[in-house]
Amino acid sequence: MTGADDRVLVVRGSREFLLEPGATQETDLGVLELPEDVEPGTVVETHLGEAFEVRRLRGPDLFDHLERTGAPMMPRDIGLVVGHTGVAAGDRALDAGTGTGVLAAYLGRLGVEVTTYERDPEFADTARGNMETAGVAGTVDVRTGDLTETLDDFAAEFDLLTLDTEDAPAVVEHAEELLAPGGFLAVYSPFVESAREAVEAARGAGLADIETLETIQRRMDFDDRGSRPSTAGVGHTGYLVFARFRPQFGSPS
Amino acid sequence: MTGADDRVLVVRGSREFLLEPGATQETDLGVLELPEDVEPGTVVETHLGEAFEVRRLRGPDLFDHLERTGAPMMPRDIGLVVGHTGVAAGDRALDAGTGTGVLAAYLGRLGVEVTTYERDPEFADTARGNMETAGVAGTVDVRTGDLTETLDDFAAEFDLLTLDTEDAPAVVEHAEELLAPGGFLAVYSPFVESAREAVEAARGAGLADIETLETIQRRMDFDDRGSRPSTAGVGHTGYLVFARFRPQFGSPS
Amino acid sequence: MTGADDRVLVVRGSREFLLEPGATQETDLGVLELPEDVEPGTVVETHLGEAFEVRRLRGPDLFDHLERTGAPMMPRDIGLVVGHTGVAAGDRALDAGTGTGVLAAYLGRLGVEVTTYERDPEFADTARGNMETAGVAGTVDVRTGDLTETLDDFAAEFDLLTLDTEDAPAVVEHAEELLAPGGFLAVYSPFVESAREAVEAARGAGLADIETLETIQRRMDFDDRGSRPSTAGVGHTGYLVFARFRPQFGSPS
Amino acid sequence: MTGADDRVLVVRGSREFLLEPGATQETDLGVLELPEDVEPGTVVETHLGEAFEVRRLRGPDLFDHLERTGAPMMPRDIGLVVGHTGVAAGDRALDAGTGTGVLAAYLGRLGVEVTTYERDPEFADTARGNMETAGVAGTVDVRTGDLTETLDDFAAEFDLLTLDTEDAPAVVEHAEELLAPGGFLAVYSPFVESAREAVEAARGAGLADIETLETIQRRMDFDDRGSRPSTAGVGHTGYLVFARFRPQFGSPS
Repeated sequence: MTGADDRVLVVRGSREFLLEPGATQETDLGVLELPEDVEPGTVVETHLGEAFEVRRLRGPDLFDHLERTGAPMMPRDIGLVVGHTGVAAGDRALDAGTGTGVLAAYLGRLGVEVTTYERDPEFADTARGNMETAGVAGTVDVRTGDLTETLDDFAAEFDLLTLDTEDAPAVVEHAEELLAPGGFLAVYSPFVESAREAVEAARGAGLADIETLETIQRRMDFDDRGSRPSTAGVGHTGYLVFARFRPQFGSPS
Repeated sequence: MTGADDRVLVVRGSREFLLEPGATQETDLGVLELPEDVEPGTVVETHLGEAFEVRRLRGPDLFDHLERTGAPMMPRDIGLVVGHTGVAAGDRALDAGTGTGVLAAYLGRLGVEVTTYERDPEFADTARGNMETAGVAGTVDVRTGDLTETLDDFAAEFDLLTLDTEDAPAVVEHAEELLAPGGFLAVYSPFVESAREAVEAARGAGLADIETLETIQRRMDFDDRGSRPSTAGVGHTGYLVFARFRPQFGSPS
Repeated sequence: MTGADDRVLVVRGSREFLLEPGATQETDLGVLELPEDVEPGTVVETHLGEAFEVRRLRGPDLFDHLERTGAPMMPRDIGLVVGHTGVAAGDRALDAGTGTGVLAAYLGRLGVEVTTYERDPEFADTARGNMETAGVAGTVDVRTGDLTETLDDFAAEFDLLTLDTEDAPAVVEHAEELLAPGGFLAVYSPFVESAREAVEAARGAGLADIETLETIQRRMDFDDRGSRPSTAGVGHTGYLVFARFRPQFGSPS
Repeated sequence: MTGADDRVLVVRGSREFLLEPGATQETDLGVLELPEDVEPGTVVETHLGEAFEVRRLRGPDLFDHLERTGAPMMPRDIGLVVGHTGVAAGDRALDAGTGTGVLAAYLGRLGVEVTTYERDPEFADTARGNMETAGVAGTVDVRTGDLTETLDDFAAEFDLLTLDTEDAPAVVEHAEELLAPGGFLAVYSPFVESAREAVEAARGAGLADIETLETIQRRMDFDDRGSRPSTAGVGHTGYLVFARFRPQFGSPS
């Protein structure tokens, strides 16, 4: 792992604490005193002899332990960004609309170097703390400000450009100046209209392989009576617009 | 990147070659002679002065350049495995049913150390070549054989267990012996019956957070007349069964 | 309309009464005295001068005014049965698993002559009352009993055979003895397994054009921010298996 | 049935002829001479002794035997209109955008009296012929012209108003002048934008119970390997906007 945070999850059933080595934690099953050299995969006991499991924080745990400043992007949408853009460890990503920072944290945990912009200073501070929690403070750079005002700071150096902001189209227009050849754009848009605007900006910018995907996810229920999709539906989250920078040479071929 | 392969993609429009530095390639636009020190992000010209872009191979390019031994897992399903399990760089994954190896290659490119089993010796050889192509021969270990026969070789050391085989339930039964605390299981099943069997095996093995997801993806069309989901539907790929290993202590709490 | 019931709906906002002509009804806005010759499309007033609208009961009103003995089939599934089988006024339908009787009532209101079987005598009584309410007591014959035990009573005379019972396959086996040439079968099954059994029975019975449809319905939200599918998903109801009786002559052609 | 057409379908396997009693038809299995008193449910033979089945034309047969002037509305969408509006035999429907006339024909076959408008004179002529074929020439009145120009001709007399035209909103504005109390509006819109416009017009007109539904339908495949949704997706057809006319009295209650 690339993170600098050495906190571990100490867990028993629904009791779950994110603790630093050496920390003391009171619980309803007694007091936990965590050794300084505590290791994930071991077991610790309270002074009453009750066992807790020690483990590393993993991606899905972020949804329980990050401080929220808005609705975080869901695991499925984060995953679809990874799957459809093929971002890899060592890649560089530029992100706008940090919010809670779940996407940035996931990317950071995948070994991606992330530069992410959050306009709201308080949200940006919270996101920085969240990157500590996620163990990716070293690889995710949370900047306070507006990406559209600092576009000139960057060369065509990013493998991935992820946007979850209302003014995404204003950034998409400059995608070719930001992306390395073959690099990908991913825009998250809750609404049809904003997805369409992102697509039109991508067309205007000459990007290739533009597609907008809507994903409907359902849980399957398996019980004694049989198998069926859940009667509780899973709702819409957002549209994902993908596009790719493919430099064009000479006459169309 | 973690790979040992130094081939680059040389691209112009629909022409696309995966070439080693120093290679010579004939094209309908003239002969390309690639310098030994060719760098991604640059441009090379044929002897007729026609330009080609040089770039790194990225995840989605694997679908064009890996040799197929069956239908590869799709980007969306690979992404959903990453999103729902939160696998991270430095994690260890155990995979069965390598096939073409797209899932293993994606995970390897994300910095995950992968051990993957393929029963068919020829398919395994092809998969090894594909890992070279994907630049992950160093991090993905393709083993010829049957995981169910070598389960004793492993301690509870894996962060992720991914299964795309018909006998997935036989491995799921042993998930707790393979997974580190908090680690995830992901089973890909095209059929309702096989998904159900995986769920029943996960219940029998005492795994937690078991859920089966079905994902429907649709393209949106944006044209002059308006915006709508594509009239060409996107079909079913498979069910994804997820579960997590959560050690249980003492009495239920 | 074909019904014998002359009750009308007397409505104001969320206040809604199903009343016979000449009836007296107390409301929080005063007492309503309905004339003996009250007509749908008119307005009546309470003794305090508060107006109520008089109107006929329509299909969707049945969901508010029928007495339920179980989850009724939903409007979408009733509609899909009509759309996919093309049942018409004057047709004859044989139905098993009456339940609340919404499907039978809808079909009756469409001018279809319905014979429907309900095994539970109390449910059957309730269904008979519901047919009165729906105004179709004259065209829907609710029989107490088990269709599988009275199959011999019928010739191949039905245009439509609708089944919403656990033992649907036992009836499907005899579909050719019940259906007129070109007639349709529709089986409603909440579970994959029961849908599959119905399909296998239809194959065994030599029925044609067998298909199983699953329908996912979503509401669209249109507000000031934009347009999107509802974040509240709409869940699964059931699978619909359709098949058709096409007599086969001579050698296959 | 309400139709005046006495043609019958004469069918064997994929051979299917719509013939008048007394007609002569050459086939590759010999010459068919249909008796003047031919009855559905019987069998006729060619002069070579090959048997054909005689049957009535049913709703789904319309898709094979009506002359098309554009993409007809699909069975699922026709069915959803019936299911969500609960239209009944004896009801009156006003329809705009006849097209091929499949919706009008289905409604007519359900005993609904339909007045339908088609702007294109040739399309209207074809639709009239299609109503003959469907046996509903007596109950479906196909008018050549623009409904928006003849709105004054109608009192609030319709139980159902169905619109499949680009200028649907212009009619929706007048829905309250066309619909009987409790009557329903259904607008079919292929695009998000047109569905939204219809919703906004319905809100402006004070209609109640406004909802827009999108329906995704999938086929299930059942074979020896297992059960799953079809890998061939079923695409988008259109959005259905429903609303209801509920007269408002006095102060909101």
